Amino acid sequence: MIRIGIHGASGKMGKEIAQNLANNEVARLSIAYAIDEITYQLPKGVLVTNNLDELFANSDVVIDFTIKQGAINLINYARTNPKPLVIGTTGLGDDATELIAQASNTMPILYATNMSLGVAVLNRLVAIASKALREFDIEITEMHHKHKKDAPSGTALTLAEHAALARNLDLKEVMTTGREGLVGARNKDEIGVMALRGGDVVGRHTVGFYNDGEFIELNHTATSRATFAKGAIKAAIWLSTQQSGKYTIYDCLGL
Amino acid sequence: MIRIGIHGASGKMGKEIAQNLANNEVARLSIAYAIDEITYQLPKGVLVTNNLDELFANSDVVIDFTIKQGAINLINYARTNPKPLVIGTTGLGDDATELIAQASNTMPILYATNMSLGVAVLNRLVAIASKALREFDIEITEMHHKHKKDAPSGTALTLAEHAALARNLDLKEVMTTGREGLVGARNKDEIGVMALRGGDVVGRHTVGFYNDGEFIELNHTATSRATFAKGAIKAAIWLSTQQSGKYTIYDCLGL
Amino acid sequence: MIRIGIHGASGKMGKEIAQNLANNEVARLSIAYAIDEITYQLPKGVLVTNNLDELFANSDVVIDFTIKQGAINLINYARTNPKPLVIGTTGLGDDATELIAQASNTMPILYATNMSLGVAVLNRLVAIASKALREFDIEITEMHHKHKKDAPSGTALTLAEHAALARNLDLKEVMTTGREGLVGARNKDEIGVMALRGGDVVGRHTVGFYNDGEFIELNHTATSRATFAKGAIKAAIWLSTQQSGKYTIYDCLGL
Amino acid sequence: MIRIGIHGASGKMGKEIAQNLANNEVARLSIAYAIDEITYQLPKGVLVTNNLDELFANSDVVIDFTIKQGAINLINYARTNPKPLVIGTTGLGDDATELIAQASNTMPILYATNMSLGVAVLNRLVAIASKALREFDIEITEMHHKHKKDAPSGTALTLAEHAALARNLDLKEVMTTGREGLVGARNKDEIGVMALRGGDVVGRHTVGFYNDGEFIELNHTATSRATFAKGAIKAAIWLSTQQSGKYTIYDCLGL
Repeated sequence: MIRIGIHGASGKMGKEIAQNLANNEVARLSIAYAIDEITYQLPKGVLVTNNLDELFANSDVVIDFTIKQGAINLINYARTNPKPLVIGTTGLGDDATELIAQASNTMPILYATNMSLGVAVLNRLVAIASKALREFDIEITEMHHKHKKDAPSGTALTLAEHAALARNLDLKEVMTTGREGLVGARNKDEIGVMALRGGDVVGRHTVGFYNDGEFIELNHTATSRATFAKGAIKAAIWLSTQQSGKYTIYDCLGL
Repeated sequence: MIRIGIHGASGKMGKEIAQNLANNEVARLSIAYAIDEITYQLPKGVLVTNNLDELFANSDVVIDFTIKQGAINLINYARTNPKPLVIGTTGLGDDATELIAQASNTMPILYATNMSLGVAVLNRLVAIASKALREFDIEITEMHHKHKKDAPSGTALTLAEHAALARNLDLKEVMTTGREGLVGARNKDEIGVMALRGGDVVGRHTVGFYNDGEFIELNHTATSRATFAKGAIKAAIWLSTQQSGKYTIYDCLGL
Repeated sequence: MIRIGIHGASGKMGKEIAQNLANNEVARLSIAYAIDEITYQLPKGVLVTNNLDELFANSDVVIDFTIKQGAINLINYARTNPKPLVIGTTGLGDDATELIAQASNTMPILYATNMSLGVAVLNRLVAIASKALREFDIEITEMHHKHKKDAPSGTALTLAEHAALARNLDLKEVMTTGREGLVGARNKDEIGVMALRGGDVVGRHTVGFYNDGEFIELNHTATSRATFAKGAIKAAIWLSTQQSGKYTIYDCLGL
Repeated sequence: MIRIGIHGASGKMGKEIAQNLANNEVARLSIAYAIDEITYQLPKGVLVTNNLDELFANSDVVIDFTIKQGAINLINYARTNPKPLVIGTTGLGDDATELIAQASNTMPILYATNMSLGVAVLNRLVAIASKALREFDIEITEMHHKHKKDAPSGTALTLAEHAALARNLDLKEVMTTGREGLVGARNKDEIGVMALRGGDVVGRHTVGFYNDGEFIELNHTATSRATFAKGAIKAAIWLSTQQSGKYTIYDCLGL
């Protein structure tokens, strides 16, 4: 069994990963690193620690879901103690991203801000369709629960970037997030990104390609946060046998 | 056979109505009134005129798809020559609407800016759902072809009004047509109305009601302009046997 | 605060109801009746019992989610100790349904096999649309998780019955659950009911009405089982102030 | 301007191609070959013929939408008079397909039973997703107008084959076209293909991939038959500059 250690075990994602590892056939949770108290029940035999030496000694691969400083501490420690690392922490910024690039010379590191396998696949499909159907109009809609405070979602913006890049367009110049009044006929290169909010919707994204006579709509729907845990686990298992280097979720999926 | 006269036969809707009447079993096109040349082929035996006397003498019911002044002329003529009238002309304003109200004392008049049976039904369903599911968040999306210049569509606004009215809300105060940046959590009474544009989409409208644990989405899709012609014909046949009064497409459908 | 007692507190629905009542502002869980051990944590102050006398003495309304015999025991007890009852147990059969009818002479009883507010509303909307759009073709799709063993879902069949009844059709004669080979053109009265299975989908139902030129699609999506608990709680609060009689979820919603 | 000749100009697809070529900037309809009378109006300057010598003398590329024998005649003629050929005729069988393979040694031939660019792209996307998301359950729905006599559609079957092939599955063994009764839990490799019929729907296909926690749905909608004409014209223009060989719509799209 591959031994997986969680860095940030007391958080929501830590809990999801622990629960999803319970029935895994090739990997098991070996050690849970947390600064705060872990309020959910860990399986028997799982070590709990707030010491990086222990974390590294008792794992074959480490999954990180913390905050920027947590990720930086982990990576810095790993530079003298190389270990496969899956980094799921968001908001890293350029400095931490650069740190990952350097560290990946001596260990395999997979970094992704959205661990969903489906979203990764959707990004690839969008790029292909955007290029092959160059004359089709692109419109994106995303929907999330009523508590979400920013719009459009980071995932919608990433999808829009994939669509724009495949056409050599600058998203900043072509994106529109609302239409009201006499806005005139649609600009050819325009990419609409409309954000809906309501209920407890975990996340829905649709990228549509519209032409005279036909259209294609590519949709991803997350039905639970477990999605992101599953993706991180799949990434960790895959990464445990890779050579040093910087990887993305696409590499893991063979896309 | 009920004899239907078209007022505005040279326009797009006139043509659609003429074509859709061709196979009707209870009504037939008897006379086509137009100021401009009619560029499509009328069935044999259909009279063509630019004279209201002739139009009224040769029809049991008249369908109007012109412009504001055309509709006003027609209704004024009918005030001294009562006849069932189906008015499909848009942009009438308060004065012409008032004229319809007065004229309907002496003849049956059905007035509707969207003759689609499906849209009429959707408006009713939206009102029922909006009231029964008072705690659900409402979001509306509409999509039309890339040439459409205004947004949101008149039909989307009407749907939004039905949704708002059922909750005693003022649409102007609660409507939002785009979300970008740190907009904060969703306001409870907010009604999102998002307009998508692309390809040759004739018209799609979706009204969604979202709660924790479940949501309902009510969609109408027009697949061709024939929809509006069919609705007008159905309304005309129904109206030909009604007493004086002002009617809507809802009355015709028994909603 | 309205005191709600749960009959069948150790089951999945009992747990959902207990959790959803935690934040309710007008009602609280007062007592939990269970034969088996309750494996989740109840809020402080909630009584636990396996005695109907205690259950009735400590509640203003009782929600039942058990099995057929459990529901029968509860209703029989209530016949000499009247109390508002919400019955959510499925598979009651004619005898238990008859028992409910009799008992409702001396107390208010609400009985529903699907407590989702959204599904109740959808059934009503389907009946209205089916009647108003008589010439439209009806097709239904439902999707559930991969573990579901029967098809189509009970909810899909109920929706189909609402659609058929509104047209005076016998569902048994017009329902089709699959199409393969040279099946010929669609029969006018046919109602397709197609069952999809996959992933962990909690429940999606779409009823479509299709005509030349336009179509309407009415969709309900359950995103969590909490939906059914919420509906039962809303029904219980409403029922606590009703007079004797047999009620449905429609009465509760004012539909 | 590239001169396009139509083989089968009196048919529905012939008419669509003629109309769609009217505004083309790089190609024009030069000659229309038909055995039957052409009942629509051709642009000025277009030759009409029932002679293959004339057809070939007056075109740079020929588009064929006839029946099996028509396609065979055309290809046989071309074997001694090589010319780029776009074959859109369906139901060719193994013998005609073999004939195409032989003939393509001396001229470029593009053969496709569905000329829609969008469907071609969708097939590619489905293959990619099916492979990358190996553990996701696959369900397909297709919808067509009420007059369609066979089910599932050829396009749905092709999509299902792409999905199956990417997983090394034999579609015949895993396809199910309906579910009714106690069918049991879903078989892991099952591919559901559900056919809906109603109204005047030109063609909708959705391929869904479902996993615990997330799903992807890829949809193609044809809004008019013009789609297929556009695809054939795009293919013809592209083919006119290709070397000898057998091509598919994928080659034309660079997929």
